[in-house]
Amino acid sequence: MSKTISLIGLGAMGTALANALLDAGHVTTVWNRTSARADALIARGARLAETVTEAIAASDAIILCLTDYVAVETTVADVGPRLAGKTVVNLTNGRPDEVRAVATRLGASGARYLDGGIMATPPMIGTPDAFILYSGSAQAFEDATEHLATFGQNHYLGEDPVLAAVNDLALLSAMYGLFGGYLHATALAGSVGVTAKQFLPLVEPWLAAMMTALPDYAERIDSGDHARDVMSNLAMQSVAITNIVAASRSQGIDPAFMEPMERLAQKRLAGGFGADEVSGIIEVMRGK
Amino acid sequence: MSKTISLIGLGAMGTALANALLDAGHVTTVWNRTSARADALIARGARLAETVTEAIAASDAIILCLTDYVAVETTVADVGPRLAGKTVVNLTNGRPDEVRAVATRLGASGARYLDGGIMATPPMIGTPDAFILYSGSAQAFEDATEHLATFGQNHYLGEDPVLAAVNDLALLSAMYGLFGGYLHATALAGSVGVTAKQFLPLVEPWLAAMMTALPDYAERIDSGDHARDVMSNLAMQSVAITNIVAASRSQGIDPAFMEPMERLAQKRLAGGFGADEVSGIIEVMRGK
Ligand SMILES: NC(=O)c1ccc[n+]([C@@H]2O[C@H](COP(=O)([O-])OP(=O)(O)OC[C@H]3O[C@@H](n4cnc5c(N)ncnc54)[C@H](OP(=O)(O)O)[C@@H]3O)[C@@H](O)[C@H]2O)c1
Ligand SMILES: NC(=O)c1ccc[n+]([C@@H]2O[C@H](COP(=O)([O-])OP(=O)(O)OC[C@H]3O[C@@H](n4cnc5c(N)ncnc54)[C@H](OP(=O)(O)O)[C@@H]3O)[C@@H](O)[C@H]2O)c1
Repeated sequence: MSKTISLIGLGAMGTALANALLDAGHVTTVWNRTSARADALIARGARLAETVTEAIAASDAIILCLTDYVAVETTVADVGPRLAGKTVVNLTNGRPDEVRAVATRLGASGARYLDGGIMATPPMIGTPDAFILYSGSAQAFEDATEHLATFGQNHYLGEDPVLAAVNDLALLSAMYGLFGGYLHATALAGSVGVTAKQFLPLVEPWLAAMMTALPDYAERIDSGDHARDVMSNLAMQSVAITNIVAASRSQGIDPAFMEPMERLAQKRLAGGFGADEVSGIIEVMRGK
Repeated sequence: MSKTISLIGLGAMGTALANALLDAGHVTTVWNRTSARADALIARGARLAETVTEAIAASDAIILCLTDYVAVETTVADVGPRLAGKTVVNLTNGRPDEVRAVATRLGASGARYLDGGIMATPPMIGTPDAFILYSGSAQAFEDATEHLATFGQNHYLGEDPVLAAVNDLALLSAMYGLFGGYLHATALAGSVGVTAKQFLPLVEPWLAAMMTALPDYAERIDSGDHARDVMSNLAMQSVAITNIVAASRSQGIDPAFMEPMERLAQKRLAGGFGADEVSGIIEVMRGK
C-alpha cells in the first residue's frame, strides 16, 4: 500500500522518473505545462492533474523536475499555502543561491524541502548506475525514500539544502572537463584524417589509464604537498600544453578548451612550482 | 645477441626507458647533459658515453628523450654527418612543425627518422599499460622494434612523421580536459567543506559512467548528425553550464576551466542547435 506521489515536469528527465515510479507500481500523478507530453505515461497508468494545484492536492510528496529555477519559481509561485505539511523534492539543476532562496520560501510555507541533483542521463534512471544527491530536510528524505529509491542510488549529504547542488555542479564540471577534452582531442586527431571512430580505441583506454592518477592528486590536494615523488613535473607538462595550443591553432582547431590549462600552468610556473605535479594548479584556481 | 642501443636524455622518462632496456638485457649506452643522473643506471650495467658523438658511435639506433625540440636541436646540431645510416627514434614531445623540421634535417643527413609519442607515465614504462605511438620511417620502426618492444605496446601510425605527434597531442588534450575538470570539480566541492578524499568516491564512478557517452559522441561527430535521439539537449545542459560558472565565482573558485564550455555552448545555442546533443560543439571548434 504505497503512498501516492506527484511529479511536476515531464521533460526527458521527468518522463524517465515517472516511468521508474510506474515500473515500481507507485500511484503517480503527473503535471506538465505542455500536457500532451503526459500521454504515454497516462497510457501506462499515470494520473493526469489538470493544474499544479491539483497535482499538489493529490499527494503528500511532490517532485519537481523542470528546466531551471525560473521555471520552478513560476510553477510554485501561487501555491505556497497548499504546500504546508507537504514534502517537496526539487530535482531541478540550480545554483546554491537559487536553492537557498527556494528552500527558504517553501520552508516558510510550511513545506519540508529536499533538494536533489540527478547524476544520470534519462536511460540510466531506474538502474544502479544512476545516483542522486540529496540535501535539506532529513524528514523529507525519509518520507519520500520509498519513491526516490526507484530512481537509483541515493546519497543524502546533510541538512544544508545547497550541498546537493554544489556537489552536483562539481560533478558536472568534471564531466564537462572530460567532454571538452574529448571534443578537442577528436577535432585535433581529425585534422590529420583520423575519424572519431578510429580515435576511440586510442582515447578510451588512455582516459581510463589517466583516471588512475586522481587518487594521487586527491592526496596532494588535501595535504597541499604537490612536490613529493613527482613523476610528471609541471615544467615538462607545460611544454606539452603549449604544444597542444600552438598545434591546434596551426591545424585550424579553436584551442578554447586548452587555453585555461596553458594560462594557469604558466601562472603556477611563474610562481616557481615547475618541479611540482600539475595538481598544484588547484592552488592558482583558489586564488593562492 | 641483441644489437646495442644508445639513449640520449635521462630525465624522469629517459631513466624509465633505460631501466626497461636494461631489464630486458639490452646493451645500453646512455648520455645525459647532467651526467650524474646516469649513476644509478651505470650501477645496473649501462655504459656511459662522455659525449653525444660517443653515444651515437656506440650503436646503430639512437633514442632521444629530452624536454623539447629546442633541446633536441641543441643536442644533435653538430652531429649531422655521424647520423648517416643510423636509426634515430625521437620520443620528445613536439608540435607537427617541429617534427617536420627535424625529420627533414636528419633525413638529409642520411638518418632513418622515427618519431614517437609516449602515452604513459614513467612507472608505466615496461608494463602493458604503456602505449607508444610511432610514425615516420617504417624501416627505422622495424630496425628498432626489439628495443622499443621493451617499453610497452607500440602502435605504428604511418610514414608521415607528424602522425605520432598529432595523435599524442590529441590524447594529451583529452587528459588535460579530464584533469582540468577534476581540479575544478574538487575545488568547487571543497568550497562546501568536502575534502578531495571524500569527493573521490563520487567523482571516480561518475567519470567512468560519463565515459560511456563517448562512442555515441564519436558516431555523431563522424556523421555530423547531433540531432537524432537526443537524451541531454544543449539548451538544458547550457543552464547547468552557466550555473557552474556562476556558482564557482560565488564560491571563490576561478571558473577558467568551465568558461570555454559556456562560451562555445552559447555560440552553438545562438546557431539554433539547442535541441541537439552537446557533441555538436565540435562544429563550432572547427569554425563551422
Ligand atoms: N536530461 C538529462 O540528461 C538530465 C540529467 C541530469 C539532470 N537533469 C536535470 O533535470 C531537469 C529537467 O531536464 P530535462 O532533460 O527533463 O529537460 P527538458 O527535456 O528540456 O524538459 C524541461 C521541462 O521543464 C518544463 N518547463 C520549462 N520551463 C517551464 C516553465 N516556465 N513553466 C513550467 N514548466 C516549464 C518543460 O515543460 P514543457 O514540456 O511544457 O516545455 C519540461 O517539462 C534539469 O534541471 C536538468 O538539469 C537532466
Ligand atoms: N614524465 C612523463 O610523465 C612523460 C610522459 C610522456 C612523455 N614524456 C616526454 O618525455 C620527454 C622527457 O620528459 P621527462 O619527464 O624525462 O622530463 P625531465 O625529467 O624534465 O627531463 C628532461 C631531460 O631533457 C634534458 N635536457 C633539457 N634541456 C636540454 C638541453 N638544452 N640539452 C641537453 N639536454 C637537455 C635534461 O637534461 P638534464 O638532466 O641535464 O637537465 C633531462 O635529461 C618530454 O618530451 C616529455 O613530454 C614525459
